[in-house]
Amino acid sequence: MTKRPPLTPIVAALPSFVPFVGPESMTRERGRPFRARIGANESSFGPSPKVIATMQREAADQWMYCDPDNYDLKAALAAHLNVPIGCVVVGEGIDGLLNLAVRMHVGEGTAVVTSLGAYPTFNFHVAAAGGRLVTVPFHKDKEDLEGLLDAVKREKARIVYLSNPDNPMGTWWEAGEVLRFADALPQDTLFILDEAYGETGPSSAQPPVDVSRPNMLLMRTFSKAYGLAGIRCGYAVGEPSLIQDFEKIRNHYGTSRMAQVAGAAALQDRDWLTGVVAKVAAGRERLAEIARANGLTPIPSGTNFVTMDCGGDGAFALKVLQHLISRDVFIRKPMAPGLDRCIRVSVGLDRELDVFAEELPGALAAARGN
Amino acid sequence: MTKRPPLTPIVAALPSFVPFVGPESMTRERGRPFRARIGANESSFGPSPKVIATMQREAADQWMYCDPDNYDLKAALAAHLNVPIGCVVVGEGIDGLLNLAVRMHVGEGTAVVTSLGAYPTFNFHVAAAGGRLVTVPFHKDKEDLEGLLDAVKREKARIVYLSNPDNPMGTWWEAGEVLRFADALPQDTLFILDEAYGETGPSSAQPPVDVSRPNMLLMRTFSKAYGLAGIRCGYAVGEPSLIQDFEKIRNHYGTSRMAQVAGAAALQDRDWLTGVVAKVAAGRERLAEIARANGLTPIPSGTNFVTMDCGGDGAFALKVLQHLISRDVFIRKPMAPGLDRCIRVSVGLDRELDVFAEELPGALAAARGN
Repeated sequence: MTKRPPLTPIVAALPSFVPFVGPESMTRERGRPFRARIGANESSFGPSPKVIATMQREAADQWMYCDPDNYDLKAALAAHLNVPIGCVVVGEGIDGLLNLAVRMHVGEGTAVVTSLGAYPTFNFHVAAAGGRLVTVPFHKDKEDLEGLLDAVKREKARIVYLSNPDNPMGTWWEAGEVLRFADALPQDTLFILDEAYGETGPSSAQPPVDVSRPNMLLMRTFSKAYGLAGIRCGYAVGEPSLIQDFEKIRNHYGTSRMAQVAGAAALQDRDWLTGVVAKVAAGRERLAEIARANGLTPIPSGTNFVTMDCGGDGAFALKVLQHLISRDVFIRKPMAPGLDRCIRVSVGLDRELDVFAEELPGALAAARGN
Repeated sequence: MTKRPPLTPIVAALPSFVPFVGPESMTRERGRPFRARIGANESSFGPSPKVIATMQREAADQWMYCDPDNYDLKAALAAHLNVPIGCVVVGEGIDGLLNLAVRMHVGEGTAVVTSLGAYPTFNFHVAAAGGRLVTVPFHKDKEDLEGLLDAVKREKARIVYLSNPDNPMGTWWEAGEVLRFADALPQDTLFILDEAYGETGPSSAQPPVDVSRPNMLLMRTFSKAYGLAGIRCGYAVGEPSLIQDFEKIRNHYGTSRMAQVAGAAALQDRDWLTGVVAKVAAGRERLAEIARANGLTPIPSGTNFVTMDCGGDGAFALKVLQHLISRDVFIRKPMAPGLDRCIRVSVGLDRELDVFAEELPGALAAARGN
C-alpha cells in the first residue's frame, strides 16, 4: 500500500466536489439538452458582433502567450474608468480575483464577513485559505449593511464582501448607502464590492469609482452584460499599492490572449452594451409579469435575473425548480434559509422566456400536488 | 493617513513584480516590434487550421460559462492517454496546475526541491505558499537526478519538480532513468513531472502514462507543440484520489470555454502535430548549425528551442542577448550560475531563423568588442 503525499491540514479538511453544478453536466445526466438556458445569469444576447469578429480574427494568433501585464486591456479599462492604469488588475474572472484577494489577506482562522447565501465561490476561496467565514442573513431580501458592519467590528474581520446589485436576490443599495458603509468600516478591513451586475443595475447604485481608499476593491466582469462569461475575464479597481500587491501572487500568464482582445473590443462597443441593458430591463419586466400571472412575487431586480418568491417554504420552491428542470428549463434557486422560498430565473431570449411562461404553471401545480 | 488592510506575513514578504517580462512590454519600451519572436518557446507554426476554424465557430458561444467539469476535454484527453477520465484534471496552463499542486501540499516552511535555474513560475508558486525552496544545480547541463533525490531525502521534501525534456537547457533523461528516480523517491514526496516539451522530445524519454502512483503528477500543455499558448490550457494526469483533490481548491470556472473546445480540437488533428514536430526538429538542426557556424556550442535539445553555449561567462552571454534584442531579435537566456553562459533560442519560422542567423555574428562581435 503506497502512502499519499499528505495535503496541508487546511486543504485536507475541505470537501472535494464541484460546488456549482453546470448545465452541461445536468445535460449529460439528463441525456437531452435544455430548451431554455436561463439559470446561470449568462447573457443569452451574446457578445457584440464586433467582439465576435475580433475573436475570429485573433484565433490564428493564439500561438503567442498573452501579455503578462495585460497592458492593452488595462489601458482600455483605465481610460474607460478614468483612473490611472496602476489602479487596475485583470484576472480570470471575478472568481480568479476573489481567490487572489483572499489569499493575499486571509490566513488560518482569519475572520471574513459575507451575507448568508451570497456568492458561494467567494466562500470557497475563503475556506481554501483557512479563513473563518462569518455570515450575516439578508434582511428583507437585501444584504444587511448594518448587520455586516456589526459583524466586521465584532469579529475584527479582515475582509467584508458585498455584491451590489446582489446575487441571488437581485436587490441593491443606492450608492450613498454603500459609501456610508465603506466609510464606517475599520481601515484595516478590506471591502470587496462586487459589481458583476453593475451594468444592468440603476446607475444610482454605483458609487463613483474612487481609487483613494486603500481598503476597497471594486470588482467587475465581462461575464454578464458584455456576454463573455466563457472567456473568463474580470478586473479589480483600487488604490495603486493594493493593486500592485496582486503581482506578488497572481498567475501572470493566467488571462488568455483571447480574453485580453475580447475584453478590450467589448469595452469599445457601447451601443451593444446599451442595447443589451435595455433588453435585460425588458426581460426583467416580462419575467416579473410571468411571476405575477402565476401568483408569485417577483423581487425587484437590478441584475440580469429575477428572483421570485414562490410563496411557500424552501421545499416547495425546490419542487418548482425540479419540475422546471424535468421540463428542460434550466434555472437555479437560492438555498440559504429565508431566501430559499424563491427561484431565480435569468433573463433570456424571448423564446426562452416563452418556454418558462409555458412551463411555470405546470411546475407550480406539480409542486402543490406533491 | 489611512491604514492598509495587512497582507498575510507570507505574502507581505514576497516581491511585487512581473517575474517573466513578456515581449509585448519590451516592444512597448523599445517603441518598435521584434523581427523575430523566438524567445518564449511558443510555436510560430501556430495551431492547426482546424483548431483555428473551431475557435472561430465557437466565438459567438462565449456568452456561456465553461463547463466547470471540463468534461468533453477531459474525456478526449482520457481517450488519448488511455486512462480513466478521473485521472485527468484540466487547468489554466501548467502554471495554474502547478499553483494548485503547490497549494495543496505546501505550507509555511515546507521543503520543495527543484533544479537551480529550472522553471521560475514553479518557484514563484512555492514562495507564495510559504514553502522553502531547495535547489540542486544542473550537472553537465542536465537536471541532476541523483542530486535531486539526495536533496529530497535530506530535506524531507514534500514536492520535487522535474521537467523532461527540461527548460532552459533542452536536455532530457530517458524514460527508464525517470522511472528509476520515481521509484527511489519517498512515498510521501510528490513527484511533479513536467512534460511541457514532451511532444517534441524523443519518445524514449516519455515513461508510459502510469496512474497507479499516488505520488506522481504528470503535467502537459497545449501551449507548446499544439501552438495554443495564448489560450491557457494544460492538464495533469495521475492517480484518481490525487486528481480528485484538485476539486478542493481549483477555480472550477477557470478554464475558458474557448480553451476547452480548442484543446479538444487540437487533440484530434494528429497530422498537424506530426508536421509541427517535424518542423521543430528541422528548426533545431538549423539553429544548431547557425550556432556552430558562429563558434557556439549548441546543447542537444528535445524541446522547441536550442540553448547555445556562448563559450564565455554569464556577462558575455548577456551582452550577446542584449545586442540581439537591440537588433529586434527576441530571445531569452538562462540566468542560473553555470547555465548563464548560454543563450536560448526558440525554433521559429524560416524567416525568423534567417534574421537570427543574420544578426548573431554582429551580436557576438559586439559582445567581444565591449
